Amino acid sequence: MRIDIITVLPEMIEGTINTSILKRAQDKGLVTFELHNLRDYTLDKHKRVDDYPYGGEAGMVLQIEPIDRAIAYLKSQRDYDEVIFTTPDGEQFAQSTANELSLLNNIIILCGHYKGVDYRVREHLITREISIGDFVLTGGELAAAIIADAIVRLIPGAIGDEQSALSDSFQDNLLAPPVYTRPADYKGWTVPEVLLSGHERKIHEWRLEQAEKRTKDLRPDLSRKM
Amino acid sequence: MRIDIITVLPEMIEGTINTSILKRAQDKGLVTFELHNLRDYTLDKHKRVDDYPYGGEAGMVLQIEPIDRAIAYLKSQRDYDEVIFTTPDGEQFAQSTANELSLLNNIIILCGHYKGVDYRVREHLITREISIGDFVLTGGELAAAIIADAIVRLIPGAIGDEQSALSDSFQDNLLAPPVYTRPADYKGWTVPEVLLSGHERKIHEWRLEQAEKRTKDLRPDLSRKM
Repeated sequence: MRIDIITVLPEMIEGTINTSILKRAQDKGLVTFELHNLRDYTLDKHKRVDDYPYGGEAGMVLQIEPIDRAIAYLKSQRDYDEVIFTTPDGEQFAQSTANELSLLNNIIILCGHYKGVDYRVREHLITREISIGDFVLTGGELAAAIIADAIVRLIPGAIGDEQSALSDSFQDNLLAPPVYTRPADYKGWTVPEVLLSGHERKIHEWRLEQAEKRTKDLRPDLSRKM
Repeated sequence: MRIDIITVLPEMIEGTINTSILKRAQDKGLVTFELHNLRDYTLDKHKRVDDYPYGGEAGMVLQIEPIDRAIAYLKSQRDYDEVIFTTPDGEQFAQSTANELSLLNNIIILCGHYKGVDYRVREHLITREISIGDFVLTGGELAAAIIADAIVRLIPGAIGDEQSALSDSFQDNLLAPPVYTRPADYKGWTVPEVLLSGHERKIHEWRLEQAEKRTKDLRPDLSRKM
């Protein structure tokens, strides 16, 4: 899989995609990340990629021209399955979206920034708009990093046993049950006895019970999908 | 405001908090970030901070001891308003959460990692559990970065006119209206005429109309809160 990220702030996510599991996935050849600085695609001699909004309003707007040129250049190199724009008013990113995107070959993620992008970009150049939640960030860079992170860890071989995607929250609309590790007694706070019992069936039942209870208590909305 | 982040992967978010607006906010003295490597707080001679889960399951679990020591150390230095844990089964992070947290003085954010943290941490040491969405990440680092980013940009003085938090999506349960910038005609794709009219009242009306329409079409759930 190949993920191209177009941004005005590559340095904001460089560390993120080159650490830990995302780095290992690249080293193993499971994913290729390319960060593209939008400023490299402008014809403006001052490398400017934003301008004031029409109609007079606070905030700067990313211009269509450098974005169009960046996307056109990438598309001339290979086919892309999706050109994603990260924006708070896009479709809500969920584990099901991550599952779906993890099956694609090549995607572009355009990071919004400042007040937004020229709306014509969204009308003509983008195939999918994704929001990671009902909150506003300084830019779309962290949203792109989140999407990349959630997708890549699902690619077979990306995570080892230490993470184990199959028992994650949300994969079956159940929150994960509580987990405990050593010591069994810490300052008088003890681990539930069943987990120390060695009785496999009881442990399994306890976990399922806890997962269902937590889902019902904390997320009745998920619980209804079960 | 001061934000302490406890993590096993400080390098994953170092770049994020030292770029652009978050860096400027630090330079202006509006916020202090401190990243704490959890491994610095373990007594284990191999600097190990995780162990196998009780009851036998795939995945590693962060141990309570180093986390307790890290939090206790920070609390011995100053008072904290919240000790936040980022986890997919926490309360949903929203713009209202960001508004609320941006008014606090000192917060700790503990990043989950691997399969999770020993549940006793959550029962005894954490004051608030926050999820940034229904998806699973390689760790809580990006969630912490998201929370920090959304909070800091709300601190007065953190963002300049180029972002202008007041007209953001969600601040009034309305999605933002479309924005456009130069050129007025790009490959035949034109800017709505009203925005070029110079007629302030009409522009204002058009924007409100668009914001309401987009909210109704894309997010009927928000629209009901208006």
